[in-house]
Amino acid sequence: MTGATCNWLQPFRASPRGRVLVGMTQTLDTLVVTGPTDPASTWLAGFEAALTARDIPRAAAMFATTSFWRDLVSFSWNITTVENRDGVTDLLEHTLDRVDPRGFTLTEPSETADGVTTAWFDFATSVGRGHGLLRLVEEDGEPRAWTFLTTLQELTGHEEPRGVRRPKGAEHGANRDRVTWAERRAREAETLGRTEQPEVLVVGGGQGGIALGARLRQLGVPALVIDKHARPGDQWRGRYKSLCLHDPVWYDHLPYLKFPDNWPVFAPKDKIGDWLEFYTQVMEVPYWSSTVATKATWSPERQEWTVEVEKDGETLVLRPKQLVLATGMSGKPNIPDIPGMDVFRGDQHHSSQHPGPDAYAGKRCVVIGSNNSAFDICGALWEHGADVTMVQRSSTHIVKSDSLMEIGLGDLYSERALAAGVTTEKADLIFASLPYRIMHEFQIPLYEQMKERDADFYERLEKAGFWHDWGDDGSGLFMKYLRRGSGYYIDVGSADLVANGDVKLAHGQVSRLTEDAVVLEDGTELPADLVVYATGYGSMNGWAADLISQEVADKVGKVWGLGSDTTKDPGPWEGEQRNMWKPTQQENLWFMGGNLHQSRHYSLYLALQLKARHEGIPTPVYRLQEVHHLS
Amino acid sequence: MTGATCNWLQPFRASPRGRVLVGMTQTLDTLVVTGPTDPASTWLAGFEAALTARDIPRAAAMFATTSFWRDLVSFSWNITTVENRDGVTDLLEHTLDRVDPRGFTLTEPSETADGVTTAWFDFATSVGRGHGLLRLVEEDGEPRAWTFLTTLQELTGHEEPRGVRRPKGAEHGANRDRVTWAERRAREAETLGRTEQPEVLVVGGGQGGIALGARLRQLGVPALVIDKHARPGDQWRGRYKSLCLHDPVWYDHLPYLKFPDNWPVFAPKDKIGDWLEFYTQVMEVPYWSSTVATKATWSPERQEWTVEVEKDGETLVLRPKQLVLATGMSGKPNIPDIPGMDVFRGDQHHSSQHPGPDAYAGKRCVVIGSNNSAFDICGALWEHGADVTMVQRSSTHIVKSDSLMEIGLGDLYSERALAAGVTTEKADLIFASLPYRIMHEFQIPLYEQMKERDADFYERLEKAGFWHDWGDDGSGLFMKYLRRGSGYYIDVGSADLVANGDVKLAHGQVSRLTEDAVVLEDGTELPADLVVYATGYGSMNGWAADLISQEVADKVGKVWGLGSDTTKDPGPWEGEQRNMWKPTQQENLWFMGGNLHQSRHYSLYLALQLKARHEGIPTPVYRLQEVHHLS
Repeated sequence: MTGATCNWLQPFRASPRGRVLVGMTQTLDTLVVTGPTDPASTWLAGFEAALTARDIPRAAAMFATTSFWRDLVSFSWNITTVENRDGVTDLLEHTLDRVDPRGFTLTEPSETADGVTTAWFDFATSVGRGHGLLRLVEEDGEPRAWTFLTTLQELTGHEEPRGVRRPKGAEHGANRDRVTWAERRAREAETLGRTEQPEVLVVGGGQGGIALGARLRQLGVPALVIDKHARPGDQWRGRYKSLCLHDPVWYDHLPYLKFPDNWPVFAPKDKIGDWLEFYTQVMEVPYWSSTVATKATWSPERQEWTVEVEKDGETLVLRPKQLVLATGMSGKPNIPDIPGMDVFRGDQHHSSQHPGPDAYAGKRCVVIGSNNSAFDICGALWEHGADVTMVQRSSTHIVKSDSLMEIGLGDLYSERALAAGVTTEKADLIFASLPYRIMHEFQIPLYEQMKERDADFYERLEKAGFWHDWGDDGSGLFMKYLRRGSGYYIDVGSADLVANGDVKLAHGQVSRLTEDAVVLEDGTELPADLVVYATGYGSMNGWAADLISQEVADKVGKVWGLGSDTTKDPGPWEGEQRNMWKPTQQENLWFMGGNLHQSRHYSLYLALQLKARHEGIPTPVYRLQEVHHLS
Repeated sequence: MTGATCNWLQPFRASPRGRVLVGMTQTLDTLVVTGPTDPASTWLAGFEAALTARDIPRAAAMFATTSFWRDLVSFSWNITTVENRDGVTDLLEHTLDRVDPRGFTLTEPSETADGVTTAWFDFATSVGRGHGLLRLVEEDGEPRAWTFLTTLQELTGHEEPRGVRRPKGAEHGANRDRVTWAERRAREAETLGRTEQPEVLVVGGGQGGIALGARLRQLGVPALVIDKHARPGDQWRGRYKSLCLHDPVWYDHLPYLKFPDNWPVFAPKDKIGDWLEFYTQVMEVPYWSSTVATKATWSPERQEWTVEVEKDGETLVLRPKQLVLATGMSGKPNIPDIPGMDVFRGDQHHSSQHPGPDAYAGKRCVVIGSNNSAFDICGALWEHGADVTMVQRSSTHIVKSDSLMEIGLGDLYSERALAAGVTTEKADLIFASLPYRIMHEFQIPLYEQMKERDADFYERLEKAGFWHDWGDDGSGLFMKYLRRGSGYYIDVGSADLVANGDVKLAHGQVSRLTEDAVVLEDGTELPADLVVYATGYGSMNGWAADLISQEVADKVGKVWGLGSDTTKDPGPWEGEQRNMWKPTQQENLWFMGGNLHQSRHYSLYLALQLKARHEGIPTPVYRLQEVHHLS
């Protein structure tokens, strides 16, 4: 208690990590108990021994008969899932010598429940450090891998400047050639894209482009994000005014900087827009607003792209090595070609161009489509006193937002999950660890719960004549998102307007427009001052067709979807989302996108792939994307 | 493993909080071991029993003969420390019935080291919930409280909308009177200060005003922050260009939103400026830039202030109930009155007005003063090729930044501290828990370590003739900060310029200026094109004199300092920083300020005091600030 003999903080230091005080006398080290008796630890040691001995049959035999190994970049320089022992064998035969995996170590004790042992682990490869999630089941009396997720987290020698590696900021000492942070930033702004070429050009600066831009900045890869809007965040600000995110805050964090804990569950679009703008600045993402890419050409000889851009009216030519299309996972708007569109005298536009309801009070509005955008637009128009009719052309899946949050996401992304220790980072990996092949089996019971919980709601919808479905196999919303990116509405209130007739419902295909009406195939005539085409979007390779060429778009093929052989997601089974965040058939062309969750998580793997190429680290791709469909 | 029978996340759920797996079979609940055998738990139970019985002598007897109870707002509606059993008795006699404290519960197991048992606890009062830190020592064979910190964390029924209470954001359902977030924000901006009066007016929008503004926003207290600069953050942007924070990132977080982990240790001033601007927007702090308060008058009859402000040239009158001066803890610049200032032909200005070195390459620059600003300005001028002389008028304490970080702050604010479980929130409370009366005893050995570690450096400084000290009692920099807010330099490189003669050193008081020189009392003539008065700042009540009246400034008295009876901090002992973040002798006038750490932490207590008044919760102040000095 006297100053002469003790550090003033000594009595208050926290326990060293991993130690738990038991009573007042006994100290237990939690790491000790994860030792040799942990079945996951034993499995990992055996697996590593087999790999070190290059004994692929032995390693493959440690997987269950039905098993899935999903790799995010760490073994495959790809995003890929192999199945069963044959798949494991094939992956290892193609990668083992090069990857030289080692150091498989549990990062916390495994847990066993319902016959499945789940374990988090770290490992290393010849070029980086990885993190993974293993699930063991017993087969023939042995614990065998049922699911195995391996992910690359960082490249050795190219670790990000974060935490203990964060930059110092101040340059201490006296230096007559000192360049301040503001001066360095100003110089960079002057030279980038003019005397200095970005190695990576990211076309599209919504959440996908910004998240990737932040990762690349952090990894020291010279990049530039360009976007047609005047300010980052305008992608959201420009949408209809009542729009709020349909996904909850816990699911929506961007890399490096989480939303604060006073952030709304479902953020209003302008608030998200402001956050994206701020985030771009705080993360020092090189970003050109008011810039449109007009033409891109790949030169195999020079191994670079030539990209013409219009920046605030000025034409510039950029020569990046890598071109990333982050122009929206939804692809280009599908605008139907309907006879009479040229004679219709009212307003007509695709949902993506809808300016909001303000101008349409008292007007007759026909919204063609019955998915998310259609409902949101119908709801806002009704709120502004418009006369609204929704034209349903095919069935739609609706779930109530509250039910989806609680049943569908709550275990991973919620305050409840956080309180249980499921951080965003863990949730992302848990999410990523369940194989797409069997994911629907785990989704079906969740939607059965929702069906029961909201039975009254679905009955009312049905009575109103709404065509409702639960997906081809009853697996609900998230599978529809992964398979086709469409066909659903997360109900935040507008479904009731349809159920109670406030928004009128019509069915069938549109046959033509007249000067003042929409005419359906059954002859129904819907008088209209406004027609909104909430008719969805095409495949993202449509952007490549516009910017590069139809030839390259066809070479790359369809983007998104799994090959599930369900509506709008034709087979054969491909096992991963087509062409997303991974190499395509077109050298040095990449697709980035998805919701905020995917933008956060998968930007890491795309950024590491680009960083490796930037550093000249060999990146042989295992199982390059095959092309089965053009769009 | 089949979808029909299990939730897809079931196997992967984290353990419930507080449970630690031991081996594979045994589960220990860490809460159990904090039970009746924990000496801190026993002490708290006994203390609560005495309080519940209103047995003040028994409660006071549970404190050690020499002991300190620091209360932040929870018992006292003040920031105050009472000492020994007499002090405890007095505090309880004045507050116990009203506060009705209860529910003292450990939040984690206590820890014992070097004869001191340290324990974190929660408790409740008649109006709110608190958190505290207790240290027990053995006296007469009994564990007795040596230090006891009690802090109010929230008001019951007025909990902040955070975490599980965060706002929903989207308003689900259909509503023809819907007002969007952007519309609500726009309306608020239109009406605030015009048709709607802020309850709290915060004059000054640097980190202190912004942090308080964010807290008040979060608590739903109508407030307005005004600042003379064009944009939030300009307080930093406008300073000399090589400036970086002298405190490290872990110490500098603002409430609610921490810097990301890629943030520099010592952030450049423009980057901090941008962050403050962004933060103001993200936290939706009502903020008027380019606004100056010109006159404030308190009406005891109406119980409100009348404040005239100039906003972008427009004169407005505001009528807040509460007036907070957050215009800088350093107070108004001390500009000396030196004969000849009117004849000097070069540039002359106070350090706070120094524009940076750009215009002074090759010029003869004399910097009067030898503390932080003087060193920073001398260093930057030298880097730009100026001929620089520092005039040292009295001795200065210098510590090297690296040593201060490692030895002085590292246990509480560092990656090391975080890894050991010392979060920012815990660090703030640990920091707050050590009584000012004895803090110097714990600081002295830290500075003895620094003296030894950097012995060569101090020897060189001394050889160069620099007058160096370690504070009146050898307790170093932090005590100087608390006592007088001046008299030191955190060396980030410029001290070497003085040590090696690159920056010339002169000593003594300035007697006069000529047309082109500074003349010292010993007759030394220093030719000068520029004179910088790095002569420090006055007491913050100087702001009150300017804005309100000298009478109110005198009524309030000196701001800052402890009454330590050391240089520039005259006695008697007051035990807390004078007038900061707590009631003053002037009704409804408050002072907010300090470094980023203090702005973060103490803004909570000031905000809760203002919130209680806003809600009409009685707030009788125990031991209102006495006035012993006018400035």
